[in-house]
Amino acid sequence: MKVYEATGFINPARVRIALAEKNVLDKVEFVEVDVMNGEHRQPAFKAKNPSASIPVLELDCGTTIAECSAITEYIDSAFPGISLTGTTPKERAVIHMMQRRAEQNLLDAVGLYFHNATPGLGKKLETYQNKEWGEKQKEKAIAGMHYFDKILQEQEFIAGESFSVADITAYVGLAFADFAKIEIPAECQNLKARRTKDANRPSVAG
Amino acid sequence: MKVYEATGFINPARVRIALAEKNVLDKVEFVEVDVMNGEHRQPAFKAKNPSASIPVLELDCGTTIAECSAITEYIDSAFPGISLTGTTPKERAVIHMMQRRAEQNLLDAVGLYFHNATPGLGKKLETYQNKEWGEKQKEKAIAGMHYFDKILQEQEFIAGESFSVADITAYVGLAFADFAKIEIPAECQNLKARRTKDANRPSVAG
Repeated sequence: MKVYEATGFINPARVRIALAEKNVLDKVEFVEVDVMNGEHRQPAFKAKNPSASIPVLELDCGTTIAECSAITEYIDSAFPGISLTGTTPKERAVIHMMQRRAEQNLLDAVGLYFHNATPGLGKKLETYQNKEWGEKQKEKAIAGMHYFDKILQEQEFIAGESFSVADITAYVGLAFADFAKIEIPAECQNLKARRTKDANRPSVAG
Repeated sequence: MKVYEATGFINPARVRIALAEKNVLDKVEFVEVDVMNGEHRQPAFKAKNPSASIPVLELDCGTTIAECSAITEYIDSAFPGISLTGTTPKERAVIHMMQRRAEQNLLDAVGLYFHNATPGLGKKLETYQNKEWGEKQKEKAIAGMHYFDKILQEQEFIAGESFSVADITAYVGLAFADFAKIEIPAECQNLKARRTKDANRPSVAG
């Protein structure tokens, strides 16, 4: 199978970490997409993903899967090893919910700030910006950091007592926040400690 | 188990349709939340869901699950019958992806238009609005309708050849579009036909 991605971009990191957690990085051919020159918006790539976003997983049968949460869902159910999306209905639901919160309240909020209220990827790619909406999303991301800090006061990981896709999303969300120059509030000590531990996982540290 | 919801609201319909598809509506106690008077933003409800949104599923053990996609994930895996989220890794990934697209490009886009570019739920509840962002989301929703129409030209349902949570999300998204006065473009005949068939499913027609 193939993963279409762009080196150094945020969302592909979620897929790489999930693949590393399952020990299957070597089962994937990575294909570089020239995002900075708009390759993802050309018809050839949009035939694989009409949303024009990376990463995209292409199965050997030709089926293409976009959306990181769907790609990591596939990786988790297709390969043995650590469970990243839960096994019981309750675990699956809690992880799914916390993954959505890590997206909405952290990763996506940072992304909307970056693409709307900063120069983002530059004038050629940022064809529409709404600065006020972007600034609102920055507030949302910081509120999200406080929320996850509180969660981590009560439990070891974002979705309970095991590492999951929700932790991957939150970790990558914080990396994006760094890149977009949104600081983790000093008082969010639990979140900072979790981040340090995640950074040392073999799947992240490499 | 309990479902906290508000009569006539959009997202709770997703949960009710999923419960009806699994024939387990009678296993749930429905609890009305007075959204129009802001009950969902009071501490008692935010203890159940800090995001202050409905619906919320409360399991008998006390665990609360928010986010419709997580709730329907629980319902699908906890009860026997029709599969709404897929069984093979590939099916699960495709349904997950199409469910995200139905959210981002239809249901959520309509919601952002409604809450930002129309009077929405009224001045007391709509404490921040960004009209320009809302109008952009209306364009996104209409583009989403064209996208799903094209998909339905090639296949019977939103995520392939079986009814799934992605169909529920798209159906409810179109109901929200009606409410927000966003019309389905006349040329989207496949989408309109799918909608009519879905409206006649026992889980929807009641």
